[in-house]
Amino acid sequence: MANQLRLNGLDLQGLKDFGAALQADPERRKTVWRSRVRWQGGFQHTAESREHAPVRVDEPTALGGSDTAPNPAELLLDAVGTCLSIGYVLNAAARGIELKGLELDVEGDIDIGVFAGVVEEGNPGYSQIRVRANIDSDADPEALRALHDHVVRTSPICNTVARPVVVTTELATR
Amino acid sequence: MANQLRLNGLDLQGLKDFGAALQADPERRKTVWRSRVRWQGGFQHTAESREHAPVRVDEPTALGGSDTAPNPAELLLDAVGTCLSIGYVLNAAARGIELKGLELDVEGDIDIGVFAGVVEEGNPGYSQIRVRANIDSDADPEALRALHDHVVRTSPICNTVARPVVVTTELATR
Repeated sequence: MANQLRLNGLDLQGLKDFGAALQADPERRKTVWRSRVRWQGGFQHTAESREHAPVRVDEPTALGGSDTAPNPAELLLDAVGTCLSIGYVLNAAARGIELKGLELDVEGDIDIGVFAGVVEEGNPGYSQIRVRANIDSDADPEALRALHDHVVRTSPICNTVARPVVVTTELATR
Repeated sequence: MANQLRLNGLDLQGLKDFGAALQADPERRKTVWRSRVRWQGGFQHTAESREHAPVRVDEPTALGGSDTAPNPAELLLDAVGTCLSIGYVLNAAARGIELKGLELDVEGDIDIGVFAGVVEEGNPGYSQIRVRANIDSDADPEALRALHDHVVRTSPICNTVARPVVVTTELATR
């Protein structure tokens, strides 16, 4: 391993340098992320971050949409699953664990009664989210279990969902 | 308004019928959503729901990725913003409010110290998320304020982020 430059498609020296830079300058740990959401008619939307191609969002026809794209509930699960997966890839590389394959199945339950306006009280959001991580690797099962526990504990998006987050809103009309 | 069939691109009678169906059969309020996440090497991923085109996810080069797509933190904001926007469109239609335009700016703060492994303790996720909704409508400002308050209170994804959600994980290795 001593001379290995890349693992799981990642540049190991680059990751080390990045960690050292964050340790040297804690201000660099503070990150701000943005999304600009634009309504396209009906339930169709685009959401853009930085210079990337817009992510398209819609609702199924059964919920009044035109079903041209995933809905926000599915996008939330995409965010949870990809954040965990990035955590596996990153921390496996840092621990010298080679991954041969990695797939995650994410699912969750929403009672849409409050959102649809048919009940007044209750939790409008996900009541539970379940993740199944399928890891293909020759590493020791104990090493993969330790990797898994670390990844779940340190995942930004998993923790965003699991913890209460302050959401502030502002309305501008014209 | 009495004879209006569509508003904001939505089928008003269809929305009424949907609400009536949910009221008649509360079991239909229980929805399950899914995402299948596949690692594509490095930090590149795809996330798929139902039959829709995969959503692509990566990380910026500054964070060790190849910057081909938004990252999970941005996707989470996309989910929050599009869910709120769908709430505006739906509830505006239900209240007879015509929307001429709708854009949301969503941003949030993450300290990446725990995720990057340079600090042991702290919240790995978003500490705060801020939403600015820009609504173009001729409706009364008070009606738009009431719409806004209702939408924020009943948004499934906004509530998923604002409330603690149980996330269970399972590891399968091969």
